[in-house]
Amino acid sequence: MKKNLIYIQSGGVSSVINASACGVIETARKHTDKIDKIYAAVYGIGGFLQENIYDITDESADNVAAFRWTPGGIFGSCRHRMPDLTEDESEYMRIYELFKAHNIGYFFYNGGGGSMDAANKLANYCKSKDWDVKCLGIPKTIDNDLGYMDNCPGYGSVAKFTATATMESGLDVASMHTASTKVLLMEVMGRHAGWIAAAAGLAHTDDASHPHIIIFPEIPLNKIELLHKVDACVKKNDYCVMVVAEGARDEQGELVSTAGVGAHKQLGGAANVIAMLISQLLGYKFHCVICDYLQRSARHLSSLVDVEQAYAVGEAAVEYALQGKNAIMPTIERVSSSPYKWKVGEVELIKAANSEKLLPRNYISKDGYSITQDAEEHIRPLIQGENPPPYENGLPVFATKNFKMLAKKLPEFN
Amino acid sequence: MKKNLIYIQSGGVSSVINASACGVIETARKHTDKIDKIYAAVYGIGGFLQENIYDITDESADNVAAFRWTPGGIFGSCRHRMPDLTEDESEYMRIYELFKAHNIGYFFYNGGGGSMDAANKLANYCKSKDWDVKCLGIPKTIDNDLGYMDNCPGYGSVAKFTATATMESGLDVASMHTASTKVLLMEVMGRHAGWIAAAAGLAHTDDASHPHIIIFPEIPLNKIELLHKVDACVKKNDYCVMVVAEGARDEQGELVSTAGVGAHKQLGGAANVIAMLISQLLGYKFHCVICDYLQRSARHLSSLVDVEQAYAVGEAAVEYALQGKNAIMPTIERVSSSPYKWKVGEVELIKAANSEKLLPRNYISKDGYSITQDAEEHIRPLIQGENPPPYENGLPVFATKNFKMLAKKLPEFN
Repeated sequence: MKKNLIYIQSGGVSSVINASACGVIETARKHTDKIDKIYAAVYGIGGFLQENIYDITDESADNVAAFRWTPGGIFGSCRHRMPDLTEDESEYMRIYELFKAHNIGYFFYNGGGGSMDAANKLANYCKSKDWDVKCLGIPKTIDNDLGYMDNCPGYGSVAKFTATATMESGLDVASMHTASTKVLLMEVMGRHAGWIAAAAGLAHTDDASHPHIIIFPEIPLNKIELLHKVDACVKKNDYCVMVVAEGARDEQGELVSTAGVGAHKQLGGAANVIAMLISQLLGYKFHCVICDYLQRSARHLSSLVDVEQAYAVGEAAVEYALQGKNAIMPTIERVSSSPYKWKVGEVELIKAANSEKLLPRNYISKDGYSITQDAEEHIRPLIQGENPPPYENGLPVFATKNFKMLAKKLPEFN
Repeated sequence: MKKNLIYIQSGGVSSVINASACGVIETARKHTDKIDKIYAAVYGIGGFLQENIYDITDESADNVAAFRWTPGGIFGSCRHRMPDLTEDESEYMRIYELFKAHNIGYFFYNGGGGSMDAANKLANYCKSKDWDVKCLGIPKTIDNDLGYMDNCPGYGSVAKFTATATMESGLDVASMHTASTKVLLMEVMGRHAGWIAAAAGLAHTDDASHPHIIIFPEIPLNKIELLHKVDACVKKNDYCVMVVAEGARDEQGELVSTAGVGAHKQLGGAANVIAMLISQLLGYKFHCVICDYLQRSARHLSSLVDVEQAYAVGEAAVEYALQGKNAIMPTIERVSSSPYKWKVGEVELIKAANSEKLLPRNYISKDGYSITQDAEEHIRPLIQGENPPPYENGLPVFATKNFKMLAKKLPEFN
């Protein structure tokens, strides 16, 4: 009997999460013998719980193809941690009812470690209720901190953006330092893992020494030592380009900075805090770039390898599900680094769930402020290839969002 | 008699200032009957005064061609305002001596309004000393605030970057707002003129309503009114994308924010200040992007029109000089908007000097928070066409800087 498919985006988006959506939908359309309708949740699991569902079955092939080069979450995403089953069964029960009401036999959850945990619990819950649904995860995180993966879709593109931005803005300050800016700080994402900051380390060339300093969340920051280092760098190179992970922490384990107030306290501003110290204590003129959402939405500069891997994990998830596999997530495995070859593998959701892969210590230099050759060899292949979106009238042309809504069948859910 | 040429970069750099350098050098090389050596000042006029000069005459054609796609100032730039002749003649005297010592008959100063003023004074000074040198300006400013120009080389690229970044990061927050960020603020450059902020207005599509609010330096900011507007926007669109010029000023004419301390007090941080108000008074979760040097160094996203115009003004400056013209600057003139056609014109330096072209009031909507159709028609042509640098191993390949230094002939200058 044919069943329907639901695809859900979860957590912070990336510039290639929609390439995974494209992989899911285009692959599902090749299997109309087994898959009937193709659905997507509106704004993630939160929308799904409210039965807000798009029916993508008849969406034009051209617009689905354009998902591949559209940043953001095309169906909307959300941050939502499902409660433990022992605490509160209501969300699992609701999803089970949604599955039954809409004849869903394929559930694809596109997110990070927390989402893999939720998908795994859901798979177990449905099994306990004897509802045959394949619950698979599709990996996505710009932070690259998912375990059991050589690298995670979303990371290669933000790595390419970060390295390019470091190269380019480094050349800017390199040409301005005699009578203007001496220190450039660039803040990048990364709460616990310094993968994004590490990618900046790819920017140096025979001709340009920047970045000179990278602040990783993994290495406790001694501010006095850092100021000495910045001063020495300016004295040696005439300027200093510094890349700061937003999750930089001091030796007491405290974040260097948080922004916002109250319930919305959030990461961000570490570069500003360090910049003020440099201005006040060293007297150097600085400039400060905060990449924030730019870095994870810059689809115009995504890495081709990343786009292909994001598509491949979407495609593989559907194929695995059709092979009868359940409670797993496709992975990216490295076959060789030089030349770079990769393939899709798989891991059980229970393993992937809430795993966290920090930057290995041997990827960070002894002094803690730059990357090693090992890191460069690991990251460099992931930024290979350009895959720009089509442009029209000077700007990228992205997919449109006028999707058909599915009629609701269930009572409201609180 | 053949004379030598000196080319000098001045002020803040852009992603296409080196395309102008390329235009100057490649054109000069076609006229070896009149131009002997091709020199460039090391770090701008400051370096020139110290007799720090590159000899580019024998630089490889390939590396000079690569200037076209290399951001930053390839020879180095500096911020330096030459004193009035009536105040202090010493710098003019020194340059006149440098001209004589190095047989310089062609002087090209690539910068903004202040640089045009200096070039003009220098032309007059040399005339008064009976030294035959053609002193020409080459226009460059990302701020687009030079008078007598339809638009200025450097602006089209930062406009394309700003509009693309607004589109892309707008899609990010559009997909995240149900359980996360409601307001995205993006700070762009612009001390007095809102041209860069205005370019963000090109980002909206039939499908996406962002940007919702633009803060121009030309419009005094009423913070209470703004907060009302942000709140109404979130209530209507579920999210709000806001672009803030760093030169935003309140109704008393005070900058919303400055960064740094003491002598290095500088622009920057207006978006952070507004973000904190939104967090504290409206309680919305926000994200804040500070584009800073990224926007003016993002050569990977430069507009083809801008690259071609930057090259053309460099080329024209040399040709005008060889025609015997002096104390002028090539300009960009608009022939038609649709289809967009432009040509190179010229203006006397005395007119271009210290001129400042703000955003016309009819380019800003009545309420002061968005752009008009007139603005869109003016700016849109300037972002047309893509002209990415070559990539190798995942990153752009830029020109190298191992230039030959010219031997000094004069005593030191203080």
